Amino acid sequence: MNVLTHLDEHGNAHMVDVSQKPVTARTATARGEIHMQAETLTAILQGNLKKGDVFGVAQLAGILGAKHTSTLIPLCHPLPLSSIHVQIQAPIHATFSGLEVTATVRTTATTGVEMEALTAVSIALLTVYDMAKAVEKTMHIHNIRLVEKRGGQSGDVFNE
Amino acid sequence: MNVLTHLDEHGNAHMVDVSQKPVTARTATARGEIHMQAETLTAILQGNLKKGDVFGVAQLAGILGAKHTSTLIPLCHPLPLSSIHVQIQAPIHATFSGLEVTATVRTTATTGVEMEALTAVSIALLTVYDMAKAVEKTMHIHNIRLVEKRGGQSGDVFNE
Amino acid sequence: MNVLTHLDEHGNAHMVDVSQKPVTARTATARGEIHMQAETLTAILQGNLKKGDVFGVAQLAGILGAKHTSTLIPLCHPLPLSSIHVQIQAPIHATFSGLEVTATVRTTATTGVEMEALTAVSIALLTVYDMAKAVEKTMHIHNIRLVEKRGGQSGDVFNE
Amino acid sequence: MNVLTHLDEHGNAHMVDVSQKPVTARTATARGEIHMQAETLTAILQGNLKKGDVFGVAQLAGILGAKHTSTLIPLCHPLPLSSIHVQIQAPIHATFSGLEVTATVRTTATTGVEMEALTAVSIALLTVYDMAKAVEKTMHIHNIRLVEKRGGQSGDVFNE
Amino acid sequence: MNVLTHLDEHGNAHMVDVSQKPVTARTATARGEIHMQAETLTAILQGNLKKGDVFGVAQLAGILGAKHTSTLIPLCHPLPLSSIHVQIQAPIHATFSGLEVTATVRTTATTGVEMEALTAVSIALLTVYDMAKAVEKTMHIHNIRLVEKRGGQSGDVFNE
Amino acid sequence: MNVLTHLDEHGNAHMVDVSQKPVTARTATARGEIHMQAETLTAILQGNLKKGDVFGVAQLAGILGAKHTSTLIPLCHPLPLSSIHVQIQAPIHATFSGLEVTATVRTTATTGVEMEALTAVSIALLTVYDMAKAVEKTMHIHNIRLVEKRGGQSGDVFNE
Repeated sequence: MNVLTHLDEHGNAHMVDVSQKPVTARTATARGEIHMQAETLTAILQGNLKKGDVFGVAQLAGILGAKHTSTLIPLCHPLPLSSIHVQIQAPIHATFSGLEVTATVRTTATTGVEMEALTAVSIALLTVYDMAKAVEKTMHIHNIRLVEKRGGQSGDVFNE
Repeated sequence: MNVLTHLDEHGNAHMVDVSQKPVTARTATARGEIHMQAETLTAILQGNLKKGDVFGVAQLAGILGAKHTSTLIPLCHPLPLSSIHVQIQAPIHATFSGLEVTATVRTTATTGVEMEALTAVSIALLTVYDMAKAVEKTMHIHNIRLVEKRGGQSGDVFNE
Repeated sequence: MNVLTHLDEHGNAHMVDVSQKPVTARTATARGEIHMQAETLTAILQGNLKKGDVFGVAQLAGILGAKHTSTLIPLCHPLPLSSIHVQIQAPIHATFSGLEVTATVRTTATTGVEMEALTAVSIALLTVYDMAKAVEKTMHIHNIRLVEKRGGQSGDVFNE
Repeated sequence: MNVLTHLDEHGNAHMVDVSQKPVTARTATARGEIHMQAETLTAILQGNLKKGDVFGVAQLAGILGAKHTSTLIPLCHPLPLSSIHVQIQAPIHATFSGLEVTATVRTTATTGVEMEALTAVSIALLTVYDMAKAVEKTMHIHNIRLVEKRGGQSGDVFNE
Repeated sequence: MNVLTHLDEHGNAHMVDVSQKPVTARTATARGEIHMQAETLTAILQGNLKKGDVFGVAQLAGILGAKHTSTLIPLCHPLPLSSIHVQIQAPIHATFSGLEVTATVRTTATTGVEMEALTAVSIALLTVYDMAKAVEKTMHIHNIRLVEKRGGQSGDVFNE
Repeated sequence: MNVLTHLDEHGNAHMVDVSQKPVTARTATARGEIHMQAETLTAILQGNLKKGDVFGVAQLAGILGAKHTSTLIPLCHPLPLSSIHVQIQAPIHATFSGLEVTATVRTTATTGVEMEALTAVSIALLTVYDMAKAVEKTMHIHNIRLVEKRGGQSGDVFNE
């Protein structure tokens, strides 16, 4: 028996049928990091102090990215989204030089928004890369993961 | 002086003017990983042996993702793309349990395709996550980086 | 205290949480104008008498534009839309030479469709501009505003 | 009286108002064919036996196509979709040489998903054409039709 | 040896590399039909005589559809398009009751626009179906094929 | 003779053939205003002083809007864009209370970018409306027009 629900009994990809699942409130939070040299981080933070645009552009890209999820991830269901929040920060006590992005997405629907939260984080991190790549080409995106999931059949999940 | 070229002299975000740059052939290769438990990897590989759909869906999502780059990354230029290649594999001698995605994108244009290659990798990895998340919710996406860039003003770059 | 609900307590943009708001029927009507020289208006109306295509193309662009709203306006919620109606006319007793576009959008959702109606009007007017710009480059788009809003927490609003 | 519901009383195109219709479970199944020379079919089936990618790419394109329906078909309503299933096969006893695509789409909404199922079939067939066009330019797409529709005011419909 | 150019040497789908092909002028024309009962055709033609909107909406949907081709057909290259023309008619001496759509697309690029022309025809036909489906659910889309292709390495092709 | 180039000889809408036009450098600048009560403007400017997000979100929406132009305006050509710049300000000596948006777009192509500049302005203004609509529903968008166009067959045009 195949445990991957996105494959049907013949091994073909399909969009899982959620029509019999109840409509409930659901929340998902994802997080990820971009690692860079200290000089690059300083350049971003200085640009940011002036007008807030590096953080602002990446946050907005994350919010828009969450809304594109069902177009980007082939087997995702198109869902109404009731809230998207994306936060970027340079963690003070971090073990790395770089930025951390956290995204929280809410819906009231028959399936969850983990992929929307993860997509928001990924697109926000890629946008930071894009804005800083003229300064450094060796940045790495790391540790994109689901940190919290509430509501839905599979129950509440906490990864941190 | 601000070294971040996506911010103008007032600190506002803008799409950098590339109208004076020459049209040249450019290639970019990016790579990234998704780490998971051994059981999850086995489930994917078994599904894959049957019909190839987990790898196939993720590769295709990466190819389509590359074509969406200028919509997703706010300050990216829309570019004609002359080739997109996405490859997924379970590395034999890897230090982690999971999959590795490599994407190579080509264009003949006034600016490069690093973001297209990085976006292809990110979307392919998110698609693997989506297809396996019913089995495991603790997968992590890691180490998304540019590994090669050829052509263009900033010269050839190799990160590995 | 910040009265702009799209900014959170740190001044960051976010998509407002509507998950606690009740699902109700909502309607919004918006209107706008494009001003042009009498000769340009005549050319459009003559083309329109033949096959209806200038008005038809602009109406359809408005309808499609309403459906793209949550992609275009970064902090808008993606909503199911139950009706979109776009009407174009050359007002008989108008104080200007040109066309007037009116759009009405309906939904049953937790938030309203003002932006969908305003976007439909804007895109329809831009489409008229596009179709007539070979004749006149001095057209002006004017007076895009919300004229009616029914349903929802903030009550019924009439601007005309 | 005009029986075409997408035209209003003035003959203008509009998106029909479904706000007064009840939310019910709905299913639609569509089917279509692509005819080709026996040699082309053999090339596809051989490629398919290896890794499954011709069928896989076309199925996925169909699934994504269904999600793009309300953007592509101007007067379609944007709908939440609860399931999309696309199947491709080379019919054994067919009266033609080629492939057959069947798509089933489900929703719980105020209007049906016939267009989503028909769009999924059309895009999957076009994708087969694209992948085989280097081999044969005389393929024909045929017989795209609705084969089943359940739920909704107009009742259950079976076309085969 | 695999003759399907969209599969690489490992049988994986990829976007064929066209970076070494010369930029030349290219044209493609595609055609297709929608068959329906005589009463349905009459309803469309009557609606059309009034304001032209059934034909107008379908033509416009075809034009927009051509521009979405590289998003819809996974392995298609995004191309600049220099012209799109979509024509709909009720053929006078046809052997069927229904409408015929013809689309011609031009580009100056390294690869052709067959898929853009075929996509324009498909989307225009689906749009006719959508507008008439309240009247008849047994319409069939038939005979979508490439009728002419000029320019490019594989030479001029005529299918009719 | 019909002077509207977007209508063919039968009065049908089509995308004008630009395949015979030379590729040249082109620039277009458009401008528009949103009028509001003094209190609303103050709320925006205060929010803006803190983190810059009202202006930042609207600028970014304008930049992304320019990239969506050929999808939104049905008969526009998809073009490579080499630069997009969107600026928002509260004009000091203005005769109105509100904000002014100016967008400049560049391309090297066979046709101009007037519609891209006008679309950027329109979407940025709608985004300001969206962010301030909880405070005031009587804002008006005004005076969207082309202020400068350089390059191309129809020569340089200045509207201010």
